[in-house]
Amino acid sequence: MVKKKNDSERFIVPGFLASGISSGIKGNKEKDLGLIYSEIPAATAAVFTQNRVKAAPVLLSMGRVKRHLCQAVVVNSGNANACTGKAGLSDAYSTAGQTAQRLGIDEALVMVASTGVIGKRLPVDRIHRNIPQLVEGLTPDGILSAAQAILTTDTQPKVVIRKEVINDKEFTICGIAKGAGMIMPNMATLLSFILTDAAIEAETLENVFKEGIRCSFNRITIDGDTSTNDMAMIMANGKAENPLMTKSSGCVGRFGELLSEVLTKLAMMIVKDGEGATKFVEISVVNAKGESDALRAALNIANSNLVKTAFFGEDCNWGRIVSAVGASGADIDIDKIDVSFDDILVVSKGISTGYEQEERAHRVLEREEFKVVVDLNCGLGKAKVFTTDLSPEYININANYRS
Amino acid sequence: MVKKKNDSERFIVPGFLASGISSGIKGNKEKDLGLIYSEIPAATAAVFTQNRVKAAPVLLSMGRVKRHLCQAVVVNSGNANACTGKAGLSDAYSTAGQTAQRLGIDEALVMVASTGVIGKRLPVDRIHRNIPQLVEGLTPDGILSAAQAILTTDTQPKVVIRKEVINDKEFTICGIAKGAGMIMPNMATLLSFILTDAAIEAETLENVFKEGIRCSFNRITIDGDTSTNDMAMIMANGKAENPLMTKSSGCVGRFGELLSEVLTKLAMMIVKDGEGATKFVEISVVNAKGESDALRAALNIANSNLVKTAFFGEDCNWGRIVSAVGASGADIDIDKIDVSFDDILVVSKGISTGYEQEERAHRVLEREEFKVVVDLNCGLGKAKVFTTDLSPEYININANYRS
Repeated sequence: MVKKKNDSERFIVPGFLASGISSGIKGNKEKDLGLIYSEIPAATAAVFTQNRVKAAPVLLSMGRVKRHLCQAVVVNSGNANACTGKAGLSDAYSTAGQTAQRLGIDEALVMVASTGVIGKRLPVDRIHRNIPQLVEGLTPDGILSAAQAILTTDTQPKVVIRKEVINDKEFTICGIAKGAGMIMPNMATLLSFILTDAAIEAETLENVFKEGIRCSFNRITIDGDTSTNDMAMIMANGKAENPLMTKSSGCVGRFGELLSEVLTKLAMMIVKDGEGATKFVEISVVNAKGESDALRAALNIANSNLVKTAFFGEDCNWGRIVSAVGASGADIDIDKIDVSFDDILVVSKGISTGYEQEERAHRVLEREEFKVVVDLNCGLGKAKVFTTDLSPEYININANYRS
Repeated sequence: MVKKKNDSERFIVPGFLASGISSGIKGNKEKDLGLIYSEIPAATAAVFTQNRVKAAPVLLSMGRVKRHLCQAVVVNSGNANACTGKAGLSDAYSTAGQTAQRLGIDEALVMVASTGVIGKRLPVDRIHRNIPQLVEGLTPDGILSAAQAILTTDTQPKVVIRKEVINDKEFTICGIAKGAGMIMPNMATLLSFILTDAAIEAETLENVFKEGIRCSFNRITIDGDTSTNDMAMIMANGKAENPLMTKSSGCVGRFGELLSEVLTKLAMMIVKDGEGATKFVEISVVNAKGESDALRAALNIANSNLVKTAFFGEDCNWGRIVSAVGASGADIDIDKIDVSFDDILVVSKGISTGYEQEERAHRVLEREEFKVVVDLNCGLGKAKVFTTDLSPEYININANYRS
C-alpha cells in the first residue's frame, strides 16, 4: 500500500528529520523505537485518549502540549508504559530527558508516546543505551523508519504524504500512524504523528486538527472507549515560510481540507489493516433526525459482533443491521428504513425486497470492499464510519498477543 | 444440566399444561412450536426489548399484557417475525386467534413470542395446521417439551423449578428460557416464561418480577441494546390457594427471593450455553462510587472483545481489564484499583503484583469457571455480571447462521 519504488524518498517534509531502530524492547529484531525531530520548535496540537486510565507517556505529553510547542517526539512500541505508577511516569520523563540532552534541546520540547503491553515497566536502560544511535540515525527521509518503529500488530507501516501549492506556496503534510486490533469498539491503541512545514498559528492549527480528527480517527473509534495510550499530534514548523496562517487567512480552508485528506487516508489504512480483517466496510447512515443519531446508528452497526461475523460469512443478514440500528438509541421509524449493500436495495420501508435482491446483495458481500447504506428517511443527519468484519483470525491474534 | 432421571416429571406447576412439537418452521424435525396454558386466566407481568425495532409478536404481547391477565402463550422458534411489516403483525394475531379458538378461550388472553431469523414472513399456514396437535399435546409435564421448542442455537433446554413452603403454603415457581449468541452486547434473543401457582396481586407480581429481572437477565444483557424479540413473562394462576399476596403480605419478600433464584439460575444457564463459550466468568466490581458506576465498569469489561479473547487464550491480561474499566465512564482512580482472578491478586493500587502472582492467576484462567474481581476502593457501589469468552467457534456459528 505504501511501499512503492523509491518510496522513502517521497516521505520528506522540509525541516523535519526522523529515525527508527530496534532497541530490543520487543525481544526480537523488529524496530521498536522511533524519533521525529524538527530543526526548529514547531507549533503543536494534540488529542489524547478519553480513557480514565492514562499511560505515563500520555500524562507527560498532555502536560507539555499546553505550551503548543514541541521539537521532538520519541515513540516506542512493545511496551505501553501504562499502569506502571509513579515509576512509569519517571521512566517517561527520563526517556524524554535523555533524548533532549542528546539532541541538545530544551527537555520541555520533547514529547513521548508508547504502545504495547500494559502493566510492565519500560526497559529504560535499554532505551537510554539506544538513544545515541536513534539521534545519530536522524535523516530527512527517516519518516518511513519511524513509521515502522511504532507498529505493534499492524502488518505494514502507514504513511501518507500530500503536497499542494496554496496561494503560491507549496505546503507538505505527511502523517504516520499505527492502528491495531479492531480499533472499534475496543481498546486498541491508535498513535499518529502529522508533520507539516506550514507556518500556522497554534490555535488555528489546533482547530483544523481537531476538525480533521473528528471526521477521520473519530469515525473509526469511539470517544470514551479508547485505549490507555491513544494519541495523535501535529507539528507545524513554518519552514514553508508562508505568511503565518490564522483562522482568517484565505488559505486555511484548503489547508484544513488537505490535512483531513491525510488523516482520513491514515484512518482507512488502519481499518484495512485491522486484525484478521478480510472485509473493508463503509457504514453510511443517511437522513437521520440529526448527525448524532446518524453516528450513533452507524457506530452501533459497526460495533456489532453479529453484524461483523455476518460480513465475514458473506451473509446478507440485514436483520442484524436493522436490529443494531433499533438498539442504537437513535430516533427511528422501522417502517421508513431502507438498507442497501452498495447499490442493491435489500430493505425498503422496513421489509425485505425479496429473495432475488438478497441474492444480488450476496454477490456484493463477496467483494473485499463494500458499502452498507442505511436510509432512515426521517431527517437530514448523516454519518459515515469504516469498519471490518470479525474473523476467527482476530481471536487467534488477540488470544495469544502476550505469549 | 437439566436432564436427570424422570426430569420431566419434576417440571410440573399446578394448573399449568404445556406442549412442544415440530411444525417444520426450522425445515428439519426439531421442535419449533411451544404452548403454555393455564387452566384459569393468570395474573401476568412481562418485560420486553428496549429495541426501537420490535417484532410483531412483541407488539401484540405488549398490548395485551396491559390487562395483566393471560391464559396461554404460543411460542415459535426458527423465525422471529420481525421486520415483516403489517403482514407480520397480522400473522402474529392470526396465530394467537387460531390458538384461542382451539383452546376455547378469549383471544385477548393469548400472547405470542417468536425467535429466529429476522425479515422472513412467518409460515402461518404450517403453524395453523399444527395448532390442533399442539393443543392436543398439552400435558402437566409438557414444560420440558415447550422449553425444547423455543430453542435456536442453544445446545440444551433451560428449565429451573423451585418449590418452597412459605407461611404453611407450598409454592412452585418454574421457569424456562432460551438464550443465544453471546447475549451481551449483541442482539441475541432472550425469551423466558415463568409459571407459578401463587395467588398474587398483579401489581405486586410486576414489581417482584422486575426486581428479579434487574438482578438476573439484566446482568447478562444491556437495556437499550437488545434484540427485536426479547421478552420475559410471568404467569401466576393462584392454584396454591394462598391468601392473595400483596405488597404488604408477610410472604412476598421470600416469594420474591425464590423468583430471583429461578431467574438468576436461568440467566447463568444462558451464559454457560453461550455460543462457542469455553469459559464462564463472573465479573464483580466492588467499592465503586455508586451502583451505576459499578455496573457500567462490569459491563464494559464483559463486553470487551479484547478481554474475552484473552479469557479464551487463558492469558492473564489484566491490562485489558483495567483499560476497559477506564473506558467505561465510571469515576475511578487508577492508583486505587485492585484486580483479582478468583483469590489471586494481580493488580494492587493500579500496578502489577509481579510475575509469580500472574503465573498463579494463569492457573485460575485455565479453569472453566472463574471470577474477576475489580475493587475500585472509592465507594460502596457494587455489581456483578456473568459473561463468557470469545472463541473462533462463536464466529463460525454466527457467520453461517442463516445458511
